[in-house]
Amino acid sequence: MSDSKSVAVIGLGSMGYGVAQSCIRAGLTTYGHDVAPGPVDRLRAEGGAAGTLAEAAGSLDAVVVVVLNAAQTEAVLFGPDGVVPRLRPGAVVLGCATVAPDFARAMAERCAGHGVLFLDAPISGGAARAAQGTLSVLASGTAEAFAAARPVLDAMAETVFELGEAAGAGSAMKAVNQLLAGVHIAAMAEAMALGMTQGIAPKTFLDVIRHCAGTSWMLENRAPHVIDGDYSPKSQIAIWPKDLGLVLDIARSASFGAPLAAAAMQQYLAAAGMGLAREDDAAVIKVYARNAGLTLPGETE
Amino acid sequence: MSDSKSVAVIGLGSMGYGVAQSCIRAGLTTYGHDVAPGPVDRLRAEGGAAGTLAEAAGSLDAVVVVVLNAAQTEAVLFGPDGVVPRLRPGAVVLGCATVAPDFARAMAERCAGHGVLFLDAPISGGAARAAQGTLSVLASGTAEAFAAARPVLDAMAETVFELGEAAGAGSAMKAVNQLLAGVHIAAMAEAMALGMTQGIAPKTFLDVIRHCAGTSWMLENRAPHVIDGDYSPKSQIAIWPKDLGLVLDIARSASFGAPLAAAAMQQYLAAAGMGLAREDDAAVIKVYARNAGLTLPGETE
Repeated sequence: MSDSKSVAVIGLGSMGYGVAQSCIRAGLTTYGHDVAPGPVDRLRAEGGAAGTLAEAAGSLDAVVVVVLNAAQTEAVLFGPDGVVPRLRPGAVVLGCATVAPDFARAMAERCAGHGVLFLDAPISGGAARAAQGTLSVLASGTAEAFAAARPVLDAMAETVFELGEAAGAGSAMKAVNQLLAGVHIAAMAEAMALGMTQGIAPKTFLDVIRHCAGTSWMLENRAPHVIDGDYSPKSQIAIWPKDLGLVLDIARSASFGAPLAAAAMQQYLAAAGMGLAREDDAAVIKVYARNAGLTLPGETE
Repeated sequence: MSDSKSVAVIGLGSMGYGVAQSCIRAGLTTYGHDVAPGPVDRLRAEGGAAGTLAEAAGSLDAVVVVVLNAAQTEAVLFGPDGVVPRLRPGAVVLGCATVAPDFARAMAERCAGHGVLFLDAPISGGAARAAQGTLSVLASGTAEAFAAARPVLDAMAETVFELGEAAGAGSAMKAVNQLLAGVHIAAMAEAMALGMTQGIAPKTFLDVIRHCAGTSWMLENRAPHVIDGDYSPKSQIAIWPKDLGLVLDIARSASFGAPLAAAAMQQYLAAAGMGLAREDDAAVIKVYARNAGLTLPGETE
């Protein structure tokens, strides 16, 4: 045994795999766990630790949960094979899925019941930054949870926002970011398609708008996908009914009217209904194009 | 008479006055015209040319129209005291108001009937950049119109986007930019206010989101107004029922559904209905705050 800290990354999708790679690169003893065997084997070949999660659990310093949603988070932490009851006291769980603030608070309480620390730690930045270890983490939790999570945070993140001592604040900030991101992608699509009805080519749209007050981070990131006709998923349409659904659930609980989030949600639902759930989220423009009879770049008339 | 080009700037509001100042600084003989005498006198004191628009018209090389909308543009060009019939052939009109593409095309045709050139030239960048001569101009028109307008464009703009040989393209791009800008301001307000219901302070919201994928140019520009509780108008709420109204008119003419623009429009109309038309457009957050019972920075509970 070395002095190296031990971490398990649960969920080796595009984000989780990159987090695990970053942990290996930072010198942490890194166990990967996923329902699919492929990425687990691949991670081991890249320097991941041998042994199953069940075998390793008692020796872990930290568990990073990078699954899709609250239900999966709860299952891997407290389900029939849940990891939390097997962790040593003082180990820390980093919850990275986009979840409701209430859910994050509940996870923190249940972890505390096992003597385990919990950091509410949703992530932002995409797969490329996950692999580079330069994510943004929107984190909240006790000072003890931050301290225990520090080696992992140092490995995976360029920026850690410390948003308070209670779980929930991190998830609330993530929801707010997703509201904006989801609205901005749909607004990009709406504006680009409206421009097409007026004879503005998508490339001209981007060349001009990126220098104007109408620009956004998402516009500059996603508009090239439309221009290239490339809807291979960097981030899927399917993310948005989930994440904007969460935003609208939080808003409803707070009796908060969120008309832009609600309008954007309808466009992503329509995209999913068109069979585009697995395409890149820039494909939301296909909803507008279909409705307006427009031919997008890469399509044949 | 010197070799200096002569230009009249019609409409000396916050944008037009800055354009006129930039023309003076660039060495153009610059006449200012406005329905209000105050800014006209002030411009003369800053180096503007003496003499009325009527007296100067026959000697002008260019006329820059920086009024509020299409109706005012038509009035100053072709109304009872309209300037176009008094211009010499080959003079150029720069139409800078945010108008419908069809209206810009109609103005170009009517100018052509008088031997006058027309550049569809809506502007972006705000009052500060107007005064510095660093606006963005979204321009379209004939090569002759661009050539005739060049000394004025050089004086007023940092960037001139040349969007085609026909009037209308510039105005279409401006409408597309306004769709995005209007949606992004309302989205900033919606997200910041939702965050407040979850305990996220407005300053924390900005500090975090500006580093995340949810950011936009408008968010970074307008959120500080809310944080400072400063709604002195850099750009008024009243702009948006006008500009998003134009966007929705263009969309309707094209049978194009624009649900985000429509949703944002309702929030600006509600703000105007609350009596906020003359406040800074960041005040759209007051609609959200009122509905959710939130106390904004600078307000007393």
